Amino acid sequence: MTRLPEPVTALAAALGRLPGIGPRSAERIALHVVQSDPTAVRDLAAALTLARERVASCSICGALTESQPCPVCTDPRRDATTVCIVERALDVLSLEKSGTYRGHYHVLGGKLSPLNGVGPEDLRIAPLEQRLDRAPAREIILALGGDVEGDATAHYLARRLAGRGARISRLAQGLPAGGGLEFADELTLSRALEGRRDMAP
Amino acid sequence: MTRLPEPVTALAAALGRLPGIGPRSAERIALHVVQSDPTAVRDLAAALTLARERVASCSICGALTESQPCPVCTDPRRDATTVCIVERALDVLSLEKSGTYRGHYHVLGGKLSPLNGVGPEDLRIAPLEQRLDRAPAREIILALGGDVEGDATAHYLARRLAGRGARISRLAQGLPAGGGLEFADELTLSRALEGRRDMAP
Repeated sequence: MTRLPEPVTALAAALGRLPGIGPRSAERIALHVVQSDPTAVRDLAAALTLARERVASCSICGALTESQPCPVCTDPRRDATTVCIVERALDVLSLEKSGTYRGHYHVLGGKLSPLNGVGPEDLRIAPLEQRLDRAPAREIILALGGDVEGDATAHYLARRLAGRGARISRLAQGLPAGGGLEFADELTLSRALEGRRDMAP
Repeated sequence: MTRLPEPVTALAAALGRLPGIGPRSAERIALHVVQSDPTAVRDLAAALTLARERVASCSICGALTESQPCPVCTDPRRDATTVCIVERALDVLSLEKSGTYRGHYHVLGGKLSPLNGVGPEDLRIAPLEQRLDRAPAREIILALGGDVEGDATAHYLARRLAGRGARISRLAQGLPAGGGLEFADELTLSRALEGRRDMAP
């Protein structure tokens, strides 16, 4: 054994293409796999295939779903005239967990990033416009991150979607709940100040 | 989508049982999988199953192999009277890469660790003795780690294997090749001093 058996190196190479797994940990996992219970390995392989086969992006909003369209898009109790625009499918989950939003979603699939070659045509903006043509929204909420690229994407979308008669809003920026001032960076603090709200007496 | 689709959480759970993958990175990988190319996912699943089916521990030495016994154990050019005892199957690979060893191996499968409940009966020591009964060795090299547990395992084996008429040796401890004194810890330095060798004039 001057080298690892070929199936182990092949497995390590395949694992190394997953996000956050470097070559060393890929090799470590591959070695673990060939020495572990065959049933557990078959289960993992089956879980991989099953997840990829069963789960897809919703044909309307782009969220992850097992049915087409997704449960949010087909729920009659939800407000279809409010569309919340998020960057990634996972953001839908975070907002749903907060329990306060009862409208629809639209997943962009990324944010504008000229440095990484991500332009408007790389995001799901055209499907968004087609969707708004079919079913005009009363409010469009831009729930994008507070970083530079999130800002740029929000401003771009606000311009591009203006003239549709919809209110366009953006998530508030400020102090995180439960967080003291000592943990907030300058930008967060300055935005929390700008966005200050009157208190009822 | 108040929670992730079930196949995604099932996959994340299965991934989280692999070494070095925590719950968050398991979820991240699972989300990546359901959004990536189906062929790549099928390939990964196949690589997992194939590696587990094809690769096993050598019935004699315990190294990872695709054939039984492994190529080292069956190579007539290798010295069967020298047995190098290592902790893990991967250590065989490291020693083979060094290119200087031409004997056989024996993988213990761990090291003595009373705190973790690992006793002599949990290691492949009985198979080692049966093997030495069948084919006595002239030299047994203890290539165990230089940590406390490696030390304890080496001393235990040296006692247990004494009386077989074999020379029992241990890998030298000292400065790593190319490493300066400033990078060596105190224990390494003191062992490098103890193990100092005369230089030819």
